[in-house]
This record gives sequence, C-alpha cells and structure tokens, in this order.
Amino acid sequence: MAAKSSKTSPVHIQSRLKRLRLAMRARQLDAFLATSVADVSYLSDFSGEESYLLVTRRSAVLISDSRFTEQATRECPGLRVFERKGSITAAVAKQARRGRIGFEPAAISLDGHKQLRRALGAGRLVPAKGLIRRARRCKDARELAAIRRSIRVAQDSFLAVLRRLKPAMTELEVAARLELEMKIRGSSQPAFPTIVACGARTSMPHVRPGPGRIKPGKPILFDWGASIDGYKSDLTRVVFLDSICQSLQAAYQSVREAADAALARIKPGVAAREVDAAARTVIRQAGYAKYFGHGLGHGIGKEVHEEPVIGPKSRDILEEGMVFTVEPGIYLPGCGGIRIENDVLVTSKGWRVLSDLPDDPAWAMRKTRCSRDGRLKRRI
Amino acid sequence: MAAKSSKTSPVHIQSRLKRLRLAMRARQLDAFLATSVADVSYLSDFSGEESYLLVTRRSAVLISDSRFTEQATRECPGLRVFERKGSITAAVAKQARRGRIGFEPAAISLDGHKQLRRALGAGRLVPAKGLIRRARRCKDARELAAIRRSIRVAQDSFLAVLRRLKPAMTELEVAARLELEMKIRGSSQPAFPTIVACGARTSMPHVRPGPGRIKPGKPILFDWGASIDGYKSDLTRVVFLDSICQSLQAAYQSVREAADAALARIKPGVAAREVDAAARTVIRQAGYAKYFGHGLGHGIGKEVHEEPVIGPKSRDILEEGMVFTVEPGIYLPGCGGIRIENDVLVTSKGWRVLSDLPDDPAWAMRKTRCSRDGRLKRRI
Repeated sequence: MAAKSSKTSPVHIQSRLKRLRLAMRARQLDAFLATSVADVSYLSDFSGEESYLLVTRRSAVLISDSRFTEQATRECPGLRVFERKGSITAAVAKQARRGRIGFEPAAISLDGHKQLRRALGAGRLVPAKGLIRRARRCKDARELAAIRRSIRVAQDSFLAVLRRLKPAMTELEVAARLELEMKIRGSSQPAFPTIVACGARTSMPHVRPGPGRIKPGKPILFDWGASIDGYKSDLTRVVFLDSICQSLQAAYQSVREAADAALARIKPGVAAREVDAAARTVIRQAGYAKYFGHGLGHGIGKEVHEEPVIGPKSRDILEEGMVFTVEPGIYLPGCGGIRIENDVLVTSKGWRVLSDLPDDPAWAMRKTRCSRDGRLKRRI
Repeated sequence: MAAKSSKTSPVHIQSRLKRLRLAMRARQLDAFLATSVADVSYLSDFSGEESYLLVTRRSAVLISDSRFTEQATRECPGLRVFERKGSITAAVAKQARRGRIGFEPAAISLDGHKQLRRALGAGRLVPAKGLIRRARRCKDARELAAIRRSIRVAQDSFLAVLRRLKPAMTELEVAARLELEMKIRGSSQPAFPTIVACGARTSMPHVRPGPGRIKPGKPILFDWGASIDGYKSDLTRVVFLDSICQSLQAAYQSVREAADAALARIKPGVAAREVDAAARTVIRQAGYAKYFGHGLGHGIGKEVHEEPVIGPKSRDILEEGMVFTVEPGIYLPGCGGIRIENDVLVTSKGWRVLSDLPDDPAWAMRKTRCSRDGRLKRRI
C-alpha cells in the first residue's frame, strides 16, 4: 500500500532534500537510502522507528509498516509512504529498481548490509560516509530554536527539582522527579538516562542513579537533558548541601577555568582538538591530568552524541552553526567528581553558550534550612 | 591501564561464559567479541555502554574507557577491565593478538567492521550469527526473577496511575506520572518511551503521547514497561471512562479471544508462526483482518525487542524458558485501536502468563465519579 498526501513538504524539508540531492549528484548517486532514525527524521520529520527513507533525484519515499502508516501520513505531508508487508530489504528492492544507491556505512549493520546487497544486486550499494551526518552538524534556524527550547525545558525542570531537594531523597527518586518535570514541560523523553549521583559515586562519570540517599556535605552530580521536537539538550551541574571538602572545592575551580579556556578558543575554522587541548592544559597545570579521562564534548541535535567530536584525537574543524557540549571534569576516585557541562553554539565570530544556569561555587553551595532547635528541616 | 579484582565472577556469569566457550569450540573460534550493550552485559553484568567484551578460551576482558573503569571494576568482579586510551578498534587489536575471533554481524555497523578488520588483519574476524542471541532466548532462573520484578513494577505503577487518572490530564502528563511511579519503584528507565494515547489516536500503534487531554467515552491506550536490573517488561491495556462505543466493544472482545487462541497453542516445539496464526485467524474470522497489521509478539529480556519473533514469517521454534509478548490488536482508523499485551513464559508443558493485570471489559470500563449536581468530580 502506498499513500501520499496532496500537500507539499514543508520548506525546511524541501531545503534539506535539495542539499542532499546536490551532494548525491556530486558523488554520482541516483538515490540515497537513509537508515538511521535520526537521518530519516532529519529528512522527513517522521518520528517513528524501523523505517527507511529512499531519496531519488525526483522523489522521496518512506518505507515503513502498518504500525506507522497513519502516523507517517500525518507527520510527513508531501512524502510518499510505502507500507511494506514483507522484509524492509525486499521493500527497498521494490522501490529502487535501478541506479547507484548511497548509504551511511555507520548506520547499517554488517548483517543488514549483506541482506540489502543481496536484494539489490551487486555494485548498486555505494557507501557514502558522512553525507547526511556532515549536513546535520550545522543547525538551521528551526533546529536551533528546538535545541534552545530543549535547553530551556531542561533548565527549568532542574531548578524546580533543586527547590524541592531534600536530603532524605534517593538518587533514583531525584532522577525520577527531574524526568517528570521535563515531561510535564513537553519533553517526549529524557535525552538519555538521567544521572543523579551523590558522594564518592560521582567519580564514575557515567554512573546510574541508585537507591542511596543524598547527603549534606557531599557532591550531588546531575547530568540530564530533554528532548523537544526530537532535539536534545545535555547539561551537567554539581551542587553541595551545606559544605564542601577542600579537595573538591579546588577541583571545582579548575573545572570552571578549564571551561572558560575552552570557550575562548571557539570560532569557525579552529580545530576541535585545540578546544579540547585548551581545557586539558588548565586541568593538567592544576595537577589533575590523570583525573580527566574523557573528551571535552560532543555535538548534540537529533542525537545526544553526534558530530563534531571535541576530543584530543578529533579531526573536526569548527563551523558556524555547530552546537556541542563543553564538559570538562575532574574525577577523584573514592572522593568524588566535578563536571560542568554547557551547550555551546559556534557563531560567525566566536561562540555563544546557549545554556544559562549559574556555575559559580556560591550558587552550587545550597543551604539546608534548619529549624530553631538546630534540627534539619529537610528543605533546601 | 588494566585492572582486575581478586574476586571470581559470580556463578551465573561463569555459567554463561562456559556455554559460550562450548559454542566457540564447536565453531572453531579462539575468541568471541561481544559488541552490543545487551550482549556485553549478559556476559559480564556491566551496565555501561560503548564497551566491548573479548572472551577467549581462558580469559574475558572488558574493553572500556576511563568513564567506566571504576564502575566496571565494581560491577564485574573477576573480570579484567582494560581502559583504552585510543580507539576501541586499536584496543581490541592489542588484546587479541592472534586466532579467529567470532562476532555478531547484526551487532556491528558496516563501518565498525571495516575498521576492526583493518586493525586485526585479514581472515581473523569470523561472523558467528546468533551465537549469543540464541543463548539469550531462553532465560535462566536469575533472568526470570528479574523479568518478574520488572513486570510487577510496571503493573503496580500502572494501577497507581489509574487510581489518580483524571479527565483533565494530558497524555504527556499521564505518561510522565507512569514513568515516575516506575522509577520510584526502582526502574532505572522506561523499557521504551511510554505510550499513552486517547481517542482516535489509539489507532496508530506506535503513537507518541501528545498535549491532548484524556476524555470520557474514548479509548485510552497504555503501552509501557519497566527496566529492573537491566530486564524489561512490556504491557498494553486500553481503558475507557464511563462509556465505550459499540464498534470498539466488539473489537475488544475479538482481541481477547485472539490472545486466548494464541496462548492455547504455546508449548515447546511449536513454530512461533503458528501462535501468530492462531490469533490472526480469530481476528480474521471476526472481520478485522486488515486492521491487525503487526506481528503478534516479540521476545523480551535485556532488550525490549529480542528473539524469538512471533509473527507470520517467523522461523523460530518455541523452547522452554523463552519469554515473549502476546499482543494482538485491532486498529480502526478514525475510530480507535484496541491492543492487549501480556508477557508469557514457555514452560516445559505449555505456558504461563507472567503478567496478571485484568483484561476483562468490566475492569477496563472505569467510572468517573460525579458529584450530586451531576458535574464530573474529575476523579475516577
């Protein structure tokens, strides 16, 4: 079954398809097959999964199944929707009878590629590495607006949770409340599983929230993001209740300075690895070289980890319109970790930090209110 | 950096590795490289991402990076943890200097495979399709216990939400509350983005919750699941407030009968497609053939969609210990959809439904309480 609405595609989709077709022409491709959820939605606005988009020089067809037909027809005006009955591979072969078809080799499994090659015939599938991913690196106005909304929702939700943070809450409960606040504000799902960790556990950068309770005097790390109209935000803050130990105080200061040093390097034409190096140098000079193991940042957009890579081995060069995280961290095993993460846009002349949560130590130090007899009121 | 705890691996990990090594021997493999999050955690209990597990005939090493070193050392006693500094490909080549290495071709991208093949040298990478996935189909006692807990959390959370359901709530808000209830009960994250939809939107099987409000007289569809100790549950129910239209009432009855017909066919040795056919026949005979487009079910476990496939084209044969969903549905465009989904275990002689939420129409019909003047009290 194939359905097509009489409407035409919205302007941003037309413009993305036009750019893709120019790239296809340059690589002598007759078609491009988008296979990842992010690539398909970038080119069509379709929000479902397990569907491919086949773009030829003149047409675009979404290859999906009955679970998504009605949804796709609503979401993608002007697009042809093909409802497959058999395998997705057979449906692609049916829709693409001739010509050279480009695809992203990082977005198909070895097995999926084997089946597709068998169905299409030898020599027709042409790897076109980075064709869409490179286009997706620089955000258009519509994408930027969605990312800004996603950051706003993440920030407002975080502040709402902070206002009601109580020492007796478990990490899991605080994470759940943060995700609830984001959902109430329109986030379809967390950008990734929310991290809330307290105490020495914060020295594990990707720790999962557990049943332990948050405690005064310990670092409480939040790493979270929203998803608005398919676009992700990604932020990290560490807060403290009542007091902070000297070693983490020093680390906090170094992380802030590292972030500032990185920002100062950002502008179009600069190598991403130089931005990473600027932050890393500050952390090394403060004596924490071996406690900052991960890269400085990563692009965000349809996916929470996308291009460019901001790390010591990155070959990416910054361009206007790129949006990525800047997230230096210092992790002291057995003691705790500090990470500050913001989302940054590369502008024509430099950079703009899109997130605007405070990151100064005075703000990070939260006071628990005590009642007159000195007992904790459990309200911050 | 390589770290190894002095402890030995827990018994269930030892037993899974032993079974893998027998399969390796049968395929003349010197090692197996697990690349997917689910396969790695199945063989190691590691809960992080972007890490590979290399199992040789005598050893097992988790290839990860500094973000996960401390976490992996805690989670995987007895396992060697290798903290890579360069690419994951280079780290694999360093750890696997010789011999034939099996891998799952559905769990690596075409691009990732190309890089790995280049680093390891020709002829050393051997596709071993299904080696782990087949083992993962039949759940051991520990896995079954986790799935049962995951179902319990999903059910209790759903009932808590039903008790407080109010007609003024939006789909997004109800979904958020369901996810909050699951998280408070220990679910690390939803098994998949929770579906809550009302009215005609329920005829789109994979619709996302939207800002619309739930209304009396309309079907309200919930499709949700928890994740406990990494194991997923997956359930669907449709409830109504106050009244139900005749056409959906008839569809509801047919869906129930289809589910019963499917269950009656389940036992070891039966082809999965026969189970699908049993349900499909009931729905066809009721006149709804073209309104049930998707397969009857899918395996659940570490992933919310795993083997076996319960569909018309499945080649899977049922075995004791398999756990999968049975989820017939009837979707009437413009009117609404009915789906009932339960999680079912294949036992030595037949089947057991692990979920125990009611599915009778009397239960599904929820009454909104009215105040004396007949106005809706907004409480159900």
